[in-house]
Amino acid sequence: MAAMPSPLEFHFDFISPYGYFASLRIEALAARHGRAVDWHVMLLGVSVLKVMGLKPLMDTPLKGDYTERDVLRTARELGIPMKRQPRDPVMNPLPAARAFAWVRRHHPDEAAAVVHAIYAACWGEGRDLSTPESLAGVALTGRLSGDALASAAASDEAASLLRSDVDAAVKRGVFGSPTVVVDGEMFWGLDKFDQLDRWLTRGGW
Amino acid sequence: MAAMPSPLEFHFDFISPYGYFASLRIEALAARHGRAVDWHVMLLGVSVLKVMGLKPLMDTPLKGDYTERDVLRTARELGIPMKRQPRDPVMNPLPAARAFAWVRRHHPDEAAAVVHAIYAACWGEGRDLSTPESLAGVALTGRLSGDALASAAASDEAASLLRSDVDAAVKRGVFGSPTVVVDGEMFWGLDKFDQLDRWLTRGGW
Repeated sequence: MAAMPSPLEFHFDFISPYGYFASLRIEALAARHGRAVDWHVMLLGVSVLKVMGLKPLMDTPLKGDYTERDVLRTARELGIPMKRQPRDPVMNPLPAARAFAWVRRHHPDEAAAVVHAIYAACWGEGRDLSTPESLAGVALTGRLSGDALASAAASDEAASLLRSDVDAAVKRGVFGSPTVVVDGEMFWGLDKFDQLDRWLTRGGW
Repeated sequence: MAAMPSPLEFHFDFISPYGYFASLRIEALAARHGRAVDWHVMLLGVSVLKVMGLKPLMDTPLKGDYTERDVLRTARELGIPMKRQPRDPVMNPLPAARAFAWVRRHHPDEAAAVVHAIYAACWGEGRDLSTPESLAGVALTGRLSGDALASAAASDEAASLLRSDVDAAVKRGVFGSPTVVVDGEMFWGLDKFDQLDRWLTRGGW
């Protein structure tokens, strides 16, 4: 029996529109290569602002304007619904990220469904999920409810799980959303998905 | 007679390996859509360091390491020769950029050949072109010689032409290398070439 190939580690921040777009494509990409997806939440506020010492993307001259345009055209090209706009006030990602870290630990089979539900709520429907209570309104069809997310988001355990997940991501060199890591190789950005696809097809360089 | 479609404005910095890779692909991309290439030199030292207020890419924690790896694997995948390494001391791009600004003004038909020759020398062969004199060794097969580049690079006129080209690029919002601008739409990065290709095929969104 052939060994199951290692999963694609998919790193994302809920405040990242490119993470949202990529979350809708990573499973098909993984499936084409017989791989699973291992979902990892990260915080751009830690990697970009603290570790890299850069400004938030949308506050960077020239790049902010370009990114706004690129996000909108990419959503249109891919046919992805998006009510939140790139220039809207940035949502506090901590409650959603903490809830996800808790889901990943205690309900790993629900991880994909929770990522999709949170992204659909905040980017697809434009809801503000900046507080633990706001997560109660996230529509989930699996074994978890929005209320479970809201409780988890407010717990010390979730805060601690998220801290260790975020530290681990930075230690591995992950700095942007989305990032895919597979077999020691890292690919940053939705625009890298085609190269990642070719890399998986060839099984290396 | 149908109007000739507008050219692809190709913006590049000679210190940028992604600009080098893209310079080898932009003409085929343009030709597929019946377009010409309009070559524009820019300076990342102005756009990134001064206007955007960011650090040099290779000095940015996490991103520098990722970029080093990505440049090497991309050169390998595309089969592009590269003797200069991403972590080598950065070449002073001013003499080459000034020489190119002069070529663009006075010998526009040689612009493509000069871009390819300078990129081949500094990235393909790993030569240091940090001084005007060093440009004399650039191999050119057209009407211009390396000596002509060296003289141009040392001229006040070239310095002035470059300043106005760089100012114009920043005013248009160009901040990275490579950047393609066509019919008011901007695409930043070699990784965007596929999306640009689709955009040109559809003739818009």
